Amino acid sequence: MPDDPASLTPTRQVSVIRFAGGAVTRAADVAAAEEPLDVRLHGKSFAVIMRTPGHDKALAAGFLLSERIIRSADDIGAIEHCRHPDQARAHHVVDVYLVGDAASRVSETLGRRREVIANSSCGVCGRATIDELLSEVAPLTSAGVVPVSVIRALPDALRARQSTFDETGGLHAAAICSASGEILAVAEDVGRHNAVDKVVGSLLLGAFDAAGAVRERSTRILMVSGRVSFEIVQKAWIAGIEVVAAISAPTSLAVDLAQAANVTLIGFLRPASLNIYSAAGRIATV
Amino acid sequence: MPDDPASLTPTRQVSVIRFAGGAVTRAADVAAAEEPLDVRLHGKSFAVIMRTPGHDKALAAGFLLSERIIRSADDIGAIEHCRHPDQARAHHVVDVYLVGDAASRVSETLGRRREVIANSSCGVCGRATIDELLSEVAPLTSAGVVPVSVIRALPDALRARQSTFDETGGLHAAAICSASGEILAVAEDVGRHNAVDKVVGSLLLGAFDAAGAVRERSTRILMVSGRVSFEIVQKAWIAGIEVVAAISAPTSLAVDLAQAANVTLIGFLRPASLNIYSAAGRIATV
Repeated sequence: MPDDPASLTPTRQVSVIRFAGGAVTRAADVAAAEEPLDVRLHGKSFAVIMRTPGHDKALAAGFLLSERIIRSADDIGAIEHCRHPDQARAHHVVDVYLVGDAASRVSETLGRRREVIANSSCGVCGRATIDELLSEVAPLTSAGVVPVSVIRALPDALRARQSTFDETGGLHAAAICSASGEILAVAEDVGRHNAVDKVVGSLLLGAFDAAGAVRERSTRILMVSGRVSFEIVQKAWIAGIEVVAAISAPTSLAVDLAQAANVTLIGFLRPASLNIYSAAGRIATV
Repeated sequence: MPDDPASLTPTRQVSVIRFAGGAVTRAADVAAAEEPLDVRLHGKSFAVIMRTPGHDKALAAGFLLSERIIRSADDIGAIEHCRHPDQARAHHVVDVYLVGDAASRVSETLGRRREVIANSSCGVCGRATIDELLSEVAPLTSAGVVPVSVIRALPDALRARQSTFDETGGLHAAAICSASGEILAVAEDVGRHNAVDKVVGSLLLGAFDAAGAVRERSTRILMVSGRVSFEIVQKAWIAGIEVVAAISAPTSLAVDLAQAANVTLIGFLRPASLNIYSAAGRIATV
């Protein structure tokens, strides 16, 4: 494997509030690290990929092959982490220089580049990405409280509604629930993000169909069957959903964003136990 | 939930060759359906999303909210499936019309649209997407054979190398192996696609570092810890990897693409059993 800067680690310590067997404790937990990587072609940003740090140059090379920007190793002239002196940020930038035909296609290629989600003059990093979002979307302020008993009942409730999953073993599920545990929308999809967009969109279309109806509501919970990345918390935040609860683990950047946006983030949710990573004040211990 | 055309079903029948307990049988299996959805703004393609059919209008609405193209249901003037007479294709197109401020931002919004992966004059569908790829990339022709015993040993071999997963429970893993089961590259990432790009890129950079070395090689296997979508098979095909083996299920479009590209696709891989969805001739029954 190609070498990477030693500061890039694939995990990060996070502190959690843990409910288990009726007891509430503070504990340390390890989350998979997630940080944006800026892949630059000849000095210009081509794509920002949310990734686990490590094997960054391999990720950039494989991504460029998958996108058919390069056809083989022969098209690569150089591939290296940014040499900017601020290494904490430069470690999230990989510079790629192409040669031959691939090099002559670079300007055309940059014309169809993916949308760049953060300003990136050697400056992309998770914190910058969160700050950019905070400049446009306010943290959620609702102080409504959800009993932990409602949260604990969610996995079984979601599972009972996952009809397709049971048939194929191949789908992610998402649901939006009220603070009393009523399922307001549920959807399944091969894409984890799609399942969330579907349930958010269902409530949105419900409001659209009922034009003029009262839109006031209590605290809402987004429940997901899998893991929680940055983008899942971002979707909940933008949709104004205060609590995100997941069967599996959150990433480090999901935890950071949930704290910044005052979204309550719950992971490793089981009927008898769960971890709270942020805004724990919304969860009542009964 | 909003209504969808009845022809959109979330699963599809596929036929498999099943190895279990030493016996080889033909069987019917159910795969999660995956098809591209073209989300159009005022008649122009804004994004093509690989999704499981169903709740398409909700998906389009939630996606537009997440992307902050709309801020609330009030920004939507109309949202409906394409009315083109060819319903088999039109069912994969949702037309959205915005009103007020959101409408006046549409042309700017289309300027930063995501890359459109298929031509879409009411014409996007999985088959069209595959045909477009086939016009640019040839099916894999290698006739090299892999013993089923090598395939069966892969889950334990991958698991033994998943150091971070064991700590966090939050990462996808991918590996590339030789036809004799030797692990050539392994990587973990919060993103399933990133893990694949990392291992493909590692081999590519190995070739880059060893400029001038012989590039000939035997059959290769891409092993993934999770599910297999269209994009995973596409990445293997473009990288020239003949066999894709997964612990979990493939989608319908992953199966279709693997058949078209002559990639051997294996799912539900366990030490004692597995399903083969395409190009089964590459797997020897010993």
